[in-house]
This record gives sequence, C-alpha cells and structure tokens, in this order.
Amino acid sequence: MSISMSSASLPICATMLSNLGHMLDKAQAFVDDKKCDPAALTQYRLAPDMLPFTRQILIACDAAKNGVARISGVEAPKFDDTETTLAELKARIDKTLAFLKSVPADKLDGTEAKEITFPVGRDASRTMRAEAYLKHWMLPNLFFHLTLVYAILRHNGVELGKKDYLLGAAG
Amino acid sequence: MSISMSSASLPICATMLSNLGHMLDKAQAFVDDKKCDPAALTQYRLAPDMLPFTRQILIACDAAKNGVARISGVEAPKFDDTETTLAELKARIDKTLAFLKSVPADKLDGTEAKEITFPVGRDASRTMRAEAYLKHWMLPNLFFHLTLVYAILRHNGVELGKKDYLLGAAG
Repeated sequence: MSISMSSASLPICATMLSNLGHMLDKAQAFVDDKKCDPAALTQYRLAPDMLPFTRQILIACDAAKNGVARISGVEAPKFDDTETTLAELKARIDKTLAFLKSVPADKLDGTEAKEITFPVGRDASRTMRAEAYLKHWMLPNLFFHLTLVYAILRHNGVELGKKDYLLGAAG
Repeated sequence: MSISMSSASLPICATMLSNLGHMLDKAQAFVDDKKCDPAALTQYRLAPDMLPFTRQILIACDAAKNGVARISGVEAPKFDDTETTLAELKARIDKTLAFLKSVPADKLDGTEAKEITFPVGRDASRTMRAEAYLKHWMLPNLFFHLTLVYAILRHNGVELGKKDYLLGAAG
C-alpha cells in the first residue's frame, strides 16, 4: 500500500484544472453581469512586474501538461499561447485535460527514480528525480498559478470561495 | 518503489513553511527599509471579504500541523492564534516546523486507507481516506494559503519571485 506516481499526478491535475475552468465560468458570469470589459480581468496583474491573469492560466495548464509529459515520456501537444479571451482560456484548459486523459497511468507508475531535466527560467535547466520533481516542483507550480488566478479574480470582485478552488476534491 | 505517505507530506510541508518564513524575512526587510507600519502588510486583505495576511499564515501553518497530526495520530500542540507581528508569525512557523520534525515517518507510512474526519467550515465535517485527504485537501490548502501570502506581499511591493516560493525544493 503506497502512493503511485499516476495517482499522485493525474487526478490532482485533472481536478485542479477542472476547478480552474469552473473559476473561469464564474469570471465570465461576472463580466456578463457587470457588462465590463473582460480584458479588465484577463490582462490584470497583481503587481506591474507579475504576469497577467491570462499567462497565469497558460502556465498552470503547462505545469500539468509538461510535467505529466516529462514524467511519462508521452509527447505533449504544443500550443501557441495565443489565447486572449475567457472562452479561449477555457478551451486551453479543456485541451490540457484531454491530454491528461490520454496518458496511460502505467506510463507514470514506476518512474519515481527517472531523471527529469526541465527548463528553469530562460537560460537554465535543472535535473530532479521524477518523484521529487512531481512533489517539489510540478505540483507546487500548478497550485501557485492556480491560486494566483483565484487571487486576481477575488481581488477584482468575482465571488469565489475556497470551495470553488477545492471543488471536486475526491473523497 | 513508490511514494510513501511520510515523504509525500513531511518534506513538502517543511520546505514550503521554511519558504514562508523566508518570505516573512523579506517582508520584515521591506518594512524596515520603507519605515512603514508593518500592519499595512499584516492586516492586508486582497478583498474586503478575504482573510488578512496574518490569518493566511496561521491557516497555512495549521494545514500542515493538523493534517500531519490527523494522518499520523500524533497529537498536535494547540496554539492560541494571537500572533500579530511579523516576528510572532515567524515564531509560529518555527513552532509548526518543530512539531513536523517531531513526527516519526513511520507514524505516517502505511496510513493510506485510514479514515480521516476533519472540520469543513464552522459546522460541518468531512471524511476522506488519508491518501486522498493528503493529496486532494491538505496539500492544496497549504499551497493555497502560502500563495495568497505571496500574492499579498507582491501586490504591496515586496520583491519576491517564484524562486522564493520554491526555495529549497529538494533535488
């Protein structure tokens, strides 16, 4: 009895990205209700030198997609990062979820000691064992960007609670 | 070869709470440098109906402390939640880290199927198996409150980057 690499990655990524999609639905409802420019949300940054909402979502998606691809060895689709609207961002999440669903659990299981080399910033790379990479890099990154999306929406008045962030947490 | 309950909890909590302490050091340096009222940070909320900085830190600490206590069955110390200053918050993190260090790994290992009942909100409780509780509840909560601390500091001009959040990620 112990935790497998697939169960420590796929369902967490899938649940959290579904919750991210749910938060975008609430953002869309907010924009519709307030009749405001959606760019007020999608281009919002919590600080001038932080990434805007749109990029936070793309990076959250890629944290899951590229992380699972690196660990499993299954090639991930490349996306062009051209999304600007809430609908396009939602579609990006859905494409990422479809990729996650396509990765067989047994490609992830047993990879604990596999060496993963991944880019860090623009000019550097880092190598970690897959188990450490998953627990100490990939998932912390996923939660980080997801929570920044939540923070941006809450800061701008979208009604969300932690239950929206934790929606669908498997019992 | 697979992931143990102790390795999926203790080092992640310890690393992330150490990083939280490091972020508080940067917050203290910011306050000293700007000669501003530290309450401008510690009482800051990203939205009027969100919890302030101080509570985000207490909840992050308790997510780790209470989570590890529930899974391991090791009784956790109770704290009075009276912290208001950055130094007191730092001490709370240190006390939490000391508790985590005191929990033997073998009290956590093998608990995957153990039923954990925990409070949700003020009047409800929920029961999950320990493995699901750790992966889908405890850790997402820890990362959530930690990232909100980061977001509050960044929004207020404290110079932090993702490397501060991911500091000490074990290779």
